[in-house]
This record gives sequence, C-alpha cells and structure tokens, in this order.
Amino acid sequence: MVTILNQTQNLISQYMASVLAAHPHLAQLQDLPIIYNRHLDHEVIPILSGGGSGHEPAHSGFVGDGMLSAAIYGDIFTPPTATDILEALRFLDKGKGVFVIIKNFEADIHEFSQAIHLARQEGHRIKYIISHDDISVEPKKQFQMRHRGLAGTILLHKILGAAAQKGASLDDLEELAFDLATEIATIGFATKSASLPNAPRPLFELPDSQISYGIGIHGEEGYRTVPFMSSEHLAVEIINKLQIKFHWQEGEHFILLVNNLGTTTELEQGIFLNDIHQLLDLEGLHLPFIKNGKFMTSLDMTGISVTLCRLKNKLWLDYLQAPTNAYAW
Amino acid sequence: MVTILNQTQNLISQYMASVLAAHPHLAQLQDLPIIYNRHLDHEVIPILSGGGSGHEPAHSGFVGDGMLSAAIYGDIFTPPTATDILEALRFLDKGKGVFVIIKNFEADIHEFSQAIHLARQEGHRIKYIISHDDISVEPKKQFQMRHRGLAGTILLHKILGAAAQKGASLDDLEELAFDLATEIATIGFATKSASLPNAPRPLFELPDSQISYGIGIHGEEGYRTVPFMSSEHLAVEIINKLQIKFHWQEGEHFILLVNNLGTTTELEQGIFLNDIHQLLDLEGLHLPFIKNGKFMTSLDMTGISVTLCRLKNKLWLDYLQAPTNAYAW
Repeated sequence: MVTILNQTQNLISQYMASVLAAHPHLAQLQDLPIIYNRHLDHEVIPILSGGGSGHEPAHSGFVGDGMLSAAIYGDIFTPPTATDILEALRFLDKGKGVFVIIKNFEADIHEFSQAIHLARQEGHRIKYIISHDDISVEPKKQFQMRHRGLAGTILLHKILGAAAQKGASLDDLEELAFDLATEIATIGFATKSASLPNAPRPLFELPDSQISYGIGIHGEEGYRTVPFMSSEHLAVEIINKLQIKFHWQEGEHFILLVNNLGTTTELEQGIFLNDIHQLLDLEGLHLPFIKNGKFMTSLDMTGISVTLCRLKNKLWLDYLQAPTNAYAW
Repeated sequence: MVTILNQTQNLISQYMASVLAAHPHLAQLQDLPIIYNRHLDHEVIPILSGGGSGHEPAHSGFVGDGMLSAAIYGDIFTPPTATDILEALRFLDKGKGVFVIIKNFEADIHEFSQAIHLARQEGHRIKYIISHDDISVEPKKQFQMRHRGLAGTILLHKILGAAAQKGASLDDLEELAFDLATEIATIGFATKSASLPNAPRPLFELPDSQISYGIGIHGEEGYRTVPFMSSEHLAVEIINKLQIKFHWQEGEHFILLVNNLGTTTELEQGIFLNDIHQLLDLEGLHLPFIKNGKFMTSLDMTGISVTLCRLKNKLWLDYLQAPTNAYAW
C-alpha cells in the first residue's frame, strides 16, 4: 500500500513541522531534534525523554505542563545522538538539574549515558530512570524477559511530570521513578508487522489470520505466532502473562493503559479493551484509572499493547488525573 | 487481515462498554444506544448528535462538558431509529428544549426528522442543524457537490457546545449553527477502502498505489482515482477544491481540521498536514487554530480528510479553545 510522503529523507522534519504548527505551546530548540514546552516553569524540575522516531505521537505528544519539559528524537528506530542529548540537558538545566526517562534499548542507553556523563562533568545534576516495562520473553534465551521500554514509559512521563509540577525535588523524582518502574508491565500482540516507509516488505513475516504475541516496537517478532481465534482469546493470553508478573490478589488496585500500536481501528481496540476489562474484573481487581488511546506506536503495525501498573501509592492516581496540555495524553 | 472481534453481532455494544469503562463522565441511558454526560448542567441547552456506528470515536468521543450532552448511535453505517432518538430528546429536555446536529444523509434525516416531529407534538422545543460540509462531487450527476455530513460536523459539536455552555439560548444556537454550517467545507482522500468487519472484500476496489479523491465515510468511492505521486500532490488537489468553495482572499482567517479516516499512521498524517499548512501559508491565509487527530472515521479506511472553516466571527475561536472533557477532542 502507498505510504503518504514526499521523499524518504526528510520525513521526520516534515512531521515535526506539523507538530509545531498544530501545537502552539511547543517549540523546537534551534535546528536540533528537540521539541520543548514554551512555558517552562523554572521552579519545576525539568524532565527529558525521547528515543528513535517511528513511535509517534511519542515523545513530542507528551511535552506540556505537568508532563515532559522536552522530547528528543532520532531518525526512525535510531536513538538521538549523545551530542544532541547533551544540548537538551544544557538547555533544560536552569540550576535545579534535569531528570531523564530512557527506554531500555542498548543503543538508546549508549547515547543517553554518554550525554549524561558529559553533562555531569560540566556540573549539571542529572538523574534518570531506565523504563523496562516489557514482560514478553525471548524464546531463544530460555524465555527470559526482554525488559524493553514500551508504552508503560508513558505512565512514567505522566506521573513524574505531575509530581515535578507539584514540587518534587530531583531526588524525589528518582525515588518515585524507581518505585514506579518496577510496578509497570506491558505486553502486546500484532496482527500485522510494521514496514519501514516505502519498504518492499514488512519487518517480519506474519501470515494473514495469524497473531504474534510479545512483539517489540522496532519490528521485532514476538515469542509465539498462533492463528487468530477471538478478541477474548487474545485477552486471556495477555492477562495470563501479566498475572505471572504481578501475582495479584483479589481487591488490589491497578492502572490500565491500552495502546494502539499504529493502525488498529477504534472499534477493534474498544472490543479488545472490553475483554481485558472483563477478565480483570473477574480477577477481582479494581481499576480506578483506565487510559485508552494511541501513545507509543511502531509505524504502521496493527496491534495493541496492554500496560498494568500496580497502584502502590494513592498519590500516583492524583498525578495521573492532574491536568496537562500535552496533546497525546 | 484479521478483524479483532468476538462475534459480529454484538460488536457495537462491546465497544460501548469499553467507552463507558474508560470514561467515568459518560453513562448509558437504560439499555438504549444513547451515551450521555453524567454531569449535565440543566441551565445549559442540551445538544444531541449521532448517527450510524463505524465512525468511532464519533460521536461518543464528543460527549462532555462544553460539547455534546449526548450521542446516539445505530448499527454500523445505519442511523439510530426514530424511536430511540425520541427517547434521547425526552431525556435531555429539562424545560429548555434540545438542539440537534444531524449529518446530511438521507437515512439519518429520515429518522431524526420523524423523532423531532414526534417530540414537538409532545411539546418539546427542538431546533436542529443539518451538517453538509462535504464538497466532493458526483461524477454521475454533472459533478454536483455531494454535501454529505463529514468531519466538519465535529466543529459544529465543539463551537455549539461551547456556546451553549456560555449561556446561548436555543434560538442563539440555531442562528450560530446556520452561520457556521455554510462556512465549513471538507474533502478527503483514501489510499485504502474501508471493509465491513470480517467481510471478504473492501467496500470499493482501489488498486495498490492508487488514490481515491472525495471518498465518503460509508464506503462510497470518490470522484477520481489516480496513481499516488506524493503527499504534496495530494495536498494540491485538496486545496484546489477548497479554494473553489471558498474563493478566499489573502489575509483571511480559517480554522483547519485534519482528520484520520481510520488507519493512517501519525507520521503520514503529520507529513500531509505539513504540506497542507505550507500551501495555505503560500495562499496568505492565517490559521489561528489547527486541530489534528482522529475524529470521524470510516472503519479501517486509510486516508485523511481536510476541513476548513472560514473564521467569520472571532468568538468561534474562543469557543474552539474553551476546555472540554470530551475524550476525542
């Protein structure tokens, strides 16, 4: 099928021009791949996140009051460079330091850690968290958890952003981030692989009527491919995997985030969310906050990911419900 | 490709269950196909809209403070029945009447006008507007404009909803709606037709690498099919058609709404919006409000529609910028 674009070279800068046109609260730092909130409050600890492109609306969609202060991006599925990240850190630090949210991918950690190292040498106080919410497994490595950073990262953006807005210190944010990151788990499925723009074939093969469980957001195949049965069957597999992670008890409180991985229809995502909701209800869990939408995509992948976060602290709920003008929350 | 569902019979009610689960401000009226705002302010003139399903997040996504009071839905691409619409009108009228926004399709008008007639006989004051923003043409009828109700309808929801919230009377709303409806125009294109859930083939044939201009939202083919050249070529055709409608002059102010018709990626929609934005800029137009997102879909169609609204009155901008908790605005 046609990819709607002009040339493959400048597609990210063209996309970012549209983001800036539609969202007057956002600005670009010089000609760098950095989108920031024009109305930064210098009393609030700034938060930076980012990564490769191809996951739109992440991360620029989460820049705004009470969420990220800035987002930094690379080319499709390629992290931003350490040099650009360092520029972002210098720009954001107005004397109180910067908190950084990094998704757990080797290439991302390589660039971010180098930039943080250099920024610290210049005297900037930098703290960070590595988001590792993925609980899908690696069949080739005795089914070890893969721990990649997926859509659960968005809960870190929101909760930490709201905490910063309400006056959390850099140390407070670090503590909160550690607490949170271990309580967030994500797993998803795809009915169609992503394709790079204008690529002749998809990033992995998935025959019609087949489902791949535990896919990544860079075209990585899942751990198991099975024929599609029903939305409810999908939901059962996903909930089973989440239960293995959480060992929840009846009566516990969780946050649920259901994420469109790219080109799933609203109708299908709603039907699937209904099945997830019913199963969690049968388990006796309370879900005081359900977020449904498109947060962290993988280009044109068709599929859905499910994130749960155990509500260890009731404050987290206040932070989730606090207002923000970030356009994709 | 797989459609993620359980059975084709109950998919709309399963979808609506998910909407209610994720959005606590929404409730269902008895077991009727009516979603309403739990926090209705009886001092505010209630506004009802709706139509067939298959256009999610329309219309339940636009129910909230400062937007629709309730949305009513039928089965996929089938309007709600006059009987159900009458129930919605009875429920909403707390003595000040009800304003109704109807999309211009014969079957919709048939049901809504019957319900309005019956409600008036019962003594309810009802006013309405028929949204007819489509400016695509009918090749079989000497290229007459089709004037169907498309994504421009969402601007009516927002502007009228905010006006009602700020105290507009039923007569004020009618006047504003007439003023607005003639200043709104929409036209779009598809790169892939919609398919009914689990249908063996799409609703119209569109070969790979072809574009159909002027498609409808119920699987109606466009007025012209051409090979895809570039996003910019698409934008030029769309802007030319909009210029024929508006005959704009340099320096005029317009509202721009760019709508994902179902399964377009964020990246592609952004690139296309950037091209539209650049062309309108070249025309010397001012665009003080740009809205980009997924508002009125046609199941899994891939494509984008562009809506312009001439800003005849600066108040309209205030109404657009007023806050709402409707989840799809």
